[in-house]
Amino acid sequence: MFILNTWYIAAWGSEIREKPMGRRICNQPIVFFRDHATGKVAALEDRCCHRAAPLSMGVVVESGLQCGYHGVVHDCSGRCVHIPGQEKIPTRAKVRAYPVVEKNEFVWIWMGAPELADESKIVDYPFNDDHANWPHEQGFYHIKANYLLMVDNLMDLTHLGYVHGSTIGGNPRTHVEALMDVNKTEDSLSYVRWMLNSVPPPTYLAAVPFKGRVDRWQEFEFVAPSNVLQWSGAVDAGTGAREHGNRSGGFSLRIFHGLTPETESSCFYFYAPANGYRQDDPVATKELMEHISKAFLEDKLICEGQQERIAELGEKGLIDIVSDVSRIHLRRIVQRMADRERAQHESAPSEKAAGAQEKAAIPEATAAAS
Amino acid sequence: MFILNTWYIAAWGSEIREKPMGRRICNQPIVFFRDHATGKVAALEDRCCHRAAPLSMGVVVESGLQCGYHGVVHDCSGRCVHIPGQEKIPTRAKVRAYPVVEKNEFVWIWMGAPELADESKIVDYPFNDDHANWPHEQGFYHIKANYLLMVDNLMDLTHLGYVHGSTIGGNPRTHVEALMDVNKTEDSLSYVRWMLNSVPPPTYLAAVPFKGRVDRWQEFEFVAPSNVLQWSGAVDAGTGAREHGNRSGGFSLRIFHGLTPETESSCFYFYAPANGYRQDDPVATKELMEHISKAFLEDKLICEGQQERIAELGEKGLIDIVSDVSRIHLRRIVQRMADRERAQHESAPSEKAAGAQEKAAIPEATAAAS
Amino acid sequence: MFILNTWYIAAWGSEIREKPMGRRICNQPIVFFRDHATGKVAALEDRCCHRAAPLSMGVVVESGLQCGYHGVVHDCSGRCVHIPGQEKIPTRAKVRAYPVVEKNEFVWIWMGAPELADESKIVDYPFNDDHANWPHEQGFYHIKANYLLMVDNLMDLTHLGYVHGSTIGGNPRTHVEALMDVNKTEDSLSYVRWMLNSVPPPTYLAAVPFKGRVDRWQEFEFVAPSNVLQWSGAVDAGTGAREHGNRSGGFSLRIFHGLTPETESSCFYFYAPANGYRQDDPVATKELMEHISKAFLEDKLICEGQQERIAELGEKGLIDIVSDVSRIHLRRIVQRMADRERAQHESAPSEKAAGAQEKAAIPEATAAAS
Repeated sequence: MFILNTWYIAAWGSEIREKPMGRRICNQPIVFFRDHATGKVAALEDRCCHRAAPLSMGVVVESGLQCGYHGVVHDCSGRCVHIPGQEKIPTRAKVRAYPVVEKNEFVWIWMGAPELADESKIVDYPFNDDHANWPHEQGFYHIKANYLLMVDNLMDLTHLGYVHGSTIGGNPRTHVEALMDVNKTEDSLSYVRWMLNSVPPPTYLAAVPFKGRVDRWQEFEFVAPSNVLQWSGAVDAGTGAREHGNRSGGFSLRIFHGLTPETESSCFYFYAPANGYRQDDPVATKELMEHISKAFLEDKLICEGQQERIAELGEKGLIDIVSDVSRIHLRRIVQRMADRERAQHESAPSEKAAGAQEKAAIPEATAAAS
Repeated sequence: MFILNTWYIAAWGSEIREKPMGRRICNQPIVFFRDHATGKVAALEDRCCHRAAPLSMGVVVESGLQCGYHGVVHDCSGRCVHIPGQEKIPTRAKVRAYPVVEKNEFVWIWMGAPELADESKIVDYPFNDDHANWPHEQGFYHIKANYLLMVDNLMDLTHLGYVHGSTIGGNPRTHVEALMDVNKTEDSLSYVRWMLNSVPPPTYLAAVPFKGRVDRWQEFEFVAPSNVLQWSGAVDAGTGAREHGNRSGGFSLRIFHGLTPETESSCFYFYAPANGYRQDDPVATKELMEHISKAFLEDKLICEGQQERIAELGEKGLIDIVSDVSRIHLRRIVQRMADRERAQHESAPSEKAAGAQEKAAIPEATAAAS
Repeated sequence: MFILNTWYIAAWGSEIREKPMGRRICNQPIVFFRDHATGKVAALEDRCCHRAAPLSMGVVVESGLQCGYHGVVHDCSGRCVHIPGQEKIPTRAKVRAYPVVEKNEFVWIWMGAPELADESKIVDYPFNDDHANWPHEQGFYHIKANYLLMVDNLMDLTHLGYVHGSTIGGNPRTHVEALMDVNKTEDSLSYVRWMLNSVPPPTYLAAVPFKGRVDRWQEFEFVAPSNVLQWSGAVDAGTGAREHGNRSGGFSLRIFHGLTPETESSCFYFYAPANGYRQDDPVATKELMEHISKAFLEDKLICEGQQERIAELGEKGLIDIVSDVSRIHLRRIVQRMADRERAQHESAPSEKAAGAQEKAAIPEATAAAS
């Protein structure tokens, strides 16, 4: 079960070029392509209404996406607009179209009832468009784990010392003992952590030649159900950054983390590490990307291991510990979203959402722990 | 569910040499080998009657096929004829034998009740034995799609312009607007298409140096449930080939297409493109094979895409179009065969067919469209 | 269903070094590691009690095995002894621990109720510790077949002439006509076979330059449910080895065969071929290992073929033959063990064995033949 009435990142805009691209989201096969005239991205059910061939095997033509089998064409709204050798086009000749919006370099998709799709609800992330101040690269991993296991990972940083010892981590104790300012509401979760007078981790040192200890911060904001906005950095210890708010002059990076369910047991991870410390140095941006990608590969492996065990054995017998506070809170937020969606669906079933799942909830296997 | 009381191509005769060969047909594991004395092909259940080892791991001996585990031997009729260290052979020591006939380079197998197997019902294809006039090569693809999706493909050529643009296709419009003489009866389907005054496609041009437009024909005969006989070609436009019947002097090829179900979602494709235009030129025969094999790989890929979608999502919501006429007719022929077989089976269950499926019908997933 | 109240070989002791090692036994994921202080092997459920990450992705620390995700530590008894950032450790924070014993180079594991684990029941195999007289190498295969198919294989040597013609086999007739002294009780099975005045097989000849025929013996003892002890060899024919008992002066090897269920359809094969004829020649030991491993690969392939057929088609219609006598007896022994275990379990369910399967029996698919 997936939360459908929400915006997920379907792709980097740059991934969708001349050829249509197939990608499964919330277990639905979807084809993405750019309209011939406008260049706008469209998303259709990836199954031709004629003989079910994947439309992602077709080509973009002037009037829409032409099936690679018998040449049937659907336009960006999913309506069939051309059948070779036939004048009349039946009205039921169509495929499902999904609302999509290209914003901040991402292609966002709405998997639920189209009439509920509200662009203004898409998280703002202007940094991706601000290449002068936040140069970045575009990251992507396919992860064989439920997307919430990756969100858990991002919202509990005590794992850094254990998973990322050789990259962005550093001393475990530093992380466990960080000062935490957590900001929770019924629907939101964010925190700032300060590790005052701490040893800078390898990635930080590679970027900035700190001479000694640093005051290091990590600011994380969860945007339910599947995005996390990060701002991290460090300045020389004792310069009072925490108190007076001036965080410049040291190391600083921003990362957008977007997780998108592919299936119940797999997801896509979109991430964009932005260099906020040596903006004029493309090599620094590239090196940052390499460090971060190496670290995220460590996350990928551990979450895939977790997924295997949970898929086989469930979560029975597991315990919660003190550092699970944020994780438990975010799971509750997601569970409430799922419950609301189900209630909404049951009280007023949308005609258009007939193709959607009856029940939208977070996966049983990963919801039980809290 | 498969149609069992019919002849399928199991293999090219040339595939069965000294070693036994295992192949799954209609989801039954079968071993093929040549009798030591006569060289005749035999087909047995690929499971030893002793401890279930695959007989295809054994060796051919004088008295039959010797199991590679403990040396038990079955003869070509499936009877156990030797048990090492034991004089007496129990009468129930046997495996199922399938009627097989080697004809026109193919090994044909009868999957149904053996007493119904009638060799005279095997389609005649003398061209495979006429190497002087129809030199050819032997083609084989394993296709991860139900065999009927491939038969559909062959009996609706409007796909040529879309799937095979770079090979045997040519202009889509030419195909859609071809003159069609369709010949239908309750149990048969064939057609001749003429594309008069049309541009010859790449494969034709590579074979014959046409100077301008051509009159091109495609003659297709469906032999239910799974074979298609093709004769195609072209002569210079305006020479009256359609009217007076003389099709010589240009390009001409014959192809036998045999599809054999492996499982519900996979099949084997046997094809033999025969060079009817430069018979003395082995390079031409080889080049024809290369062109055709490249084109059939395109068919394979699109049908495998179709299979994936149909297996996951069924055929609900699909529409039929004008060019589906032949496809719908052939599906009805196959459905009637399946219905007849089921009725026959229910009224007089054969002892010998006890191992066969209770119901023989065309796959649900691919039968619903018509 | 597996027999749980028994000792299985989990690993060669040499496999468990600095890093923890994951291995599935009786379909339970288990992690093996050596205690930091004592070097003793421990075996735990391979799932952290916190968030289910595989403990085999962790590292060994002073106090136990530290999870690679958030640093939770379990000791060798499965008790959680450290939670980062938290003083109090809940008593229910633990994972299942399995009794393990390292003996004769093997790590033995008890999969059933821990209170029933009795070390004295582990088969003695002092030859693995006697490197002077029985130098050997450590063999290991992963086999995609139920472990009992491999035990069957070992306890009916009539397959040697068919499966191993080019290695340890030799003339099939020699094997079928061997003199067999079988020793059966309700719970045990062993035999000595003599092939008097027979042609030595390739492996024997490669080891010892016999000038002519030999008197060859094979002594096999089955230790239920999954171990076989072998002593084989040959001396010059007619020297009376069978009568007076002196088997020295020719070829002699010992092999311990240990089969351990991984899943219902796969197992691990531990084997140790020991050179009892040229003990001072490491090359001879190595060559013996190569010959034996090549032969066991042949067994692996045939048993995997058997497994495929039995998994798909069951054992219906199979026949027993004269040489199945030992196989049938060993299956009865195993079946009785399974029945006893089930009865025991039903009459007095152990608290500690709550995680174990309700019914412990030999696999249905492989139990029906006898």
